[in-house]
Amino acid sequence: MKVITSVSAMQAEAESLRRAGKRIAVVPTMGYLHRGHTSLIEDARKRADVVVVTVFVNPTQFAPHEDYARYPRDFDRDRRLSEEAGADIVFHPEVGEMYPEGYQTFVEVSSVSEILEGAVRPAHFRGVATVVAKLFLATKPHVAVFGQKDAQQAFIVRRMVRDLNIDVEIIVAPIVREDDGLALSSRNVYLTPSERQRATVLFRSLRRAEERIRAGDRSVGSVRREMMKILQSGEPTGVDYVAFVAPATFQEIQKIEPPGVLIALAVRFGTTRLIDNTLIQL
Amino acid sequence: MKVITSVSAMQAEAESLRRAGKRIAVVPTMGYLHRGHTSLIEDARKRADVVVVTVFVNPTQFAPHEDYARYPRDFDRDRRLSEEAGADIVFHPEVGEMYPEGYQTFVEVSSVSEILEGAVRPAHFRGVATVVAKLFLATKPHVAVFGQKDAQQAFIVRRMVRDLNIDVEIIVAPIVREDDGLALSSRNVYLTPSERQRATVLFRSLRRAEERIRAGDRSVGSVRREMMKILQSGEPTGVDYVAFVAPATFQEIQKIEPPGVLIALAVRFGTTRLIDNTLIQL
Repeated sequence: MKVITSVSAMQAEAESLRRAGKRIAVVPTMGYLHRGHTSLIEDARKRADVVVVTVFVNPTQFAPHEDYARYPRDFDRDRRLSEEAGADIVFHPEVGEMYPEGYQTFVEVSSVSEILEGAVRPAHFRGVATVVAKLFLATKPHVAVFGQKDAQQAFIVRRMVRDLNIDVEIIVAPIVREDDGLALSSRNVYLTPSERQRATVLFRSLRRAEERIRAGDRSVGSVRREMMKILQSGEPTGVDYVAFVAPATFQEIQKIEPPGVLIALAVRFGTTRLIDNTLIQL
Repeated sequence: MKVITSVSAMQAEAESLRRAGKRIAVVPTMGYLHRGHTSLIEDARKRADVVVVTVFVNPTQFAPHEDYARYPRDFDRDRRLSEEAGADIVFHPEVGEMYPEGYQTFVEVSSVSEILEGAVRPAHFRGVATVVAKLFLATKPHVAVFGQKDAQQAFIVRRMVRDLNIDVEIIVAPIVREDDGLALSSRNVYLTPSERQRATVLFRSLRRAEERIRAGDRSVGSVRREMMKILQSGEPTGVDYVAFVAPATFQEIQKIEPPGVLIALAVRFGTTRLIDNTLIQL
């Protein structure tokens, strides 16, 4: 497996692979890989001749007060896990390679970037859209695999790709969970043992919502109240949002109806912020 | 020569050319081609195996009060002139193909988009950067040829390409002028005969500036005063700006010094706005 650190070397490699008729898949990550990431790499492996994993903690998607500096990093481990999961290339640029002095270009997907995660984290999705566009232009993939855990991010990437005519197929793969239902996240390492235990309320509240909806409840207010009871039982520091959105538009809905609903939530335990979601098709 | 109107067909064609080892050049235009454009197509012809001319009047770079609706269009003539100048493909999408319903993604090159043309035409360069990115992603060129007449646009495109890692070489070709010095522009057709004659003051003021600077004048104030005298002699409706900028940064300078200066100006005659510029290397 190759490790490439410069954009121009990555482009030359991708160009030569494409010229040879090889199909390239990319899995963009911020590193500190867990089974969620490796499941994406394994998925990519089935879809392409060459799998590129990008490992880059992207500063432009963090606000100044957020956890950019302390975001967990372990490149040797990421390299090993990428290789074991089937990667052929790890693209691992330095910050100065991606954002050289005088950098001033950003990609913005407007309205959907300002709600939910975007409302709590202004400029977050501007950073995400920009870095994903840059990573696509550096790695020149035919297909890219993202995780459903970052549902709004996946929606925005799809929207950007369609709007800008980026010639790449976007795959969104299912959330991978611990045995007790907690969605895998690099940020889970921040949780204290007590917080870790209480954090299962995210999944449990989503499961309860699905039960209620499958049983015929179509009221956002009623389902949300049920969810809040479970979330509050975990004594979180705060619940940023419990949102019911239309899967096709990511706009909040007033009534649960076909073709379904995506329920997304963000909950804080101490200084750690966890997100989770579930797609319920009707 | 082929005419292609859909993004997906253009991408398939470009992809197949690239796979066959062909080098692709693109010349992005808003149509209504003149000798300035055809000189760009001829330049592109020398640099690539396949020359793509794009003809698209881009609505997102016009403000509501500007001349989008009345911007001159003549596609049959553009097709003929493109072919005569050596184009292999004309990419001519409809507005709905480039900006389908729900479109919401924009590319912004920040600070340099807010000055000069950007100060007079807010959101203009956001539209330019977005459409150029989209045209590059649709036509997949190895090289793109722009005209020096839109100097700030050329600067912004170069900056965007570098910042976003777009793997395309940008060529900026010299301004083509009428015998009396007026820079060719599709908007010249708006001028009345009297305005057309008076419009030569743009070129004459730039030539005078160059003479003064070559003679040793290093004062922006003094050179600009000389230029304004000539411009005012043409009785323009208004002078939007006469700017002295550093070629490497496009930031206004206080003193003329090596490696040189780019002098850019925008002048209105009636409702027609003309721009011109000259690069003086020291």
